[in-house]
Amino acid sequence: MSNSNEPRMVETLLRVRFAETDAMGIAHHANYLVYFEAGRVELSRQGGASYADLEASGFSLAVSEVEIRYIAPAQFDQWIGVQAQVEDVRSRSVRFSYQIVDAETQQLLVTGRTKHICVNRDGEVCRIPDGWRKAIEKLSVS
Amino acid sequence: MSNSNEPRMVETLLRVRFAETDAMGIAHHANYLVYFEAGRVELSRQGGASYADLEASGFSLAVSEVEIRYIAPAQFDQWIGVQAQVEDVRSRSVRFSYQIVDAETQQLLVTGRTKHICVNRDGEVCRIPDGWRKAIEKLSVS
Amino acid sequence: MSNSNEPRMVETLLRVRFAETDAMGIAHHANYLVYFEAGRVELSRQGGASYADLEASGFSLAVSEVEIRYIAPAQFDQWIGVQAQVEDVRSRSVRFSYQIVDAETQQLLVTGRTKHICVNRDGEVCRIPDGWRKAIEKLSVS
Amino acid sequence: MSNSNEPRMVETLLRVRFAETDAMGIAHHANYLVYFEAGRVELSRQGGASYADLEASGFSLAVSEVEIRYIAPAQFDQWIGVQAQVEDVRSRSVRFSYQIVDAETQQLLVTGRTKHICVNRDGEVCRIPDGWRKAIEKLSVS
Repeated sequence: MSNSNEPRMVETLLRVRFAETDAMGIAHHANYLVYFEAGRVELSRQGGASYADLEASGFSLAVSEVEIRYIAPAQFDQWIGVQAQVEDVRSRSVRFSYQIVDAETQQLLVTGRTKHICVNRDGEVCRIPDGWRKAIEKLSVS
Repeated sequence: MSNSNEPRMVETLLRVRFAETDAMGIAHHANYLVYFEAGRVELSRQGGASYADLEASGFSLAVSEVEIRYIAPAQFDQWIGVQAQVEDVRSRSVRFSYQIVDAETQQLLVTGRTKHICVNRDGEVCRIPDGWRKAIEKLSVS
Repeated sequence: MSNSNEPRMVETLLRVRFAETDAMGIAHHANYLVYFEAGRVELSRQGGASYADLEASGFSLAVSEVEIRYIAPAQFDQWIGVQAQVEDVRSRSVRFSYQIVDAETQQLLVTGRTKHICVNRDGEVCRIPDGWRKAIEKLSVS
Repeated sequence: MSNSNEPRMVETLLRVRFAETDAMGIAHHANYLVYFEAGRVELSRQGGASYADLEASGFSLAVSEVEIRYIAPAQFDQWIGVQAQVEDVRSRSVRFSYQIVDAETQQLLVTGRTKHICVNRDGEVCRIPDGWRKAIEKLSVS
């Protein structure tokens, strides 16, 4: 149990697929955005804020900003841990941060951040639905 | 000009992207379904049957069957020609066939076929809208 | 324990990622080849024939044929079970077959088969290395 | 003709593929890294620095940093222009910047930057080969 003010971190384990490698023999750099996505979907689910439910109710969290730093490459068949956290929640936006590590050695492979803006089915920016936002806010503090 | 009963063929040129390669150093085999898709979208467009319009009007051509034969690999940065043809049109389904060739040498790389079933927004099988079907039928004979 | 002549089946569980969906709101049909791949990599591993090791020793199993039948669509966040089996092993080639099911209801979503030819680093067709082939052969009978 | 110190910009036209869309009905955000890649490959080629040749000679430009801002979504079948420029060239690294626009209206959709580090076949950081670096440097000034 943590009594710090650290946000809650959830780690999702993934194996690098052969289809995700490129001719350099490593996971292609664009896939880390897919790994981040898998990580924040799992983090949200564990916080009680299912992203599938949010989508089903007509809202999406459109990605508005992305930053990634690549420290070491991931290889085919490697187990990686996608560690995701909520960084900041506003009425219409939310920020997540990520660390991707080798699941066995904990070697840091990639870090990143994403910002998302809530949009409705017409693509208009809108408030994050209350229930979903409150669940996410709880993840942002310990 | 052709007076045979051959269906009309439309060739779409694509360059193999680095992201599409895998650790074998060649285009990953799943991408050929994406190349086929690009080919039939272009074929349909040139026949006056825009797939984007079909989607916008609430219909989709769900893929129901796929066959692919891989003869020679495509490499990063290679120009490939995706040759697409309509094979058969029914009231609720349509079949396309494809050849992918090296765009310079015309070496045959891949052949394939796809079958599609028309579905509405509720995912129910339905008749292909008349205008779209007639345009596609014209592509199936010379 | 089975005393039939059925080949051994290994099921790999995957969750459909948001990145794998398309504008029809379902998993894009090309992804099933990636799911098949994940399934045969896991099947091979459990049979003692690591595909990563095969690659590392300079051999690849190039895909030469693919067949897929799509019965029902998979949705974002759905758990799917990729059931893979060895169908046939020859000196230079191997065939796998697959069933993809909803992991909860066991509803059949997709079936398919792939054929692979062993190639060395120069892309030449060659015999499957003995150790790897024997491990795979054991998977092809109960 | 430009007599400013602006780096040379090369625009690559791409059509958004159906496979690149997601269940939000727009191009999935990870694909913009693939579009950026296509843009810098074309920019490099036009500057006389073929990325395929660099790879063939045993060197890669591993991505070390990425930033993306998403301003407006791209849709299926939309023509987009990927405008790529060299931002900075060092002995071992190079930075590119990008704008992605609607090819017809020139509406700005996405901006981004990538940083790359030269690595050899053993994955060790190394100097960018002279010929390639000089060609890229010429692109960085008018």
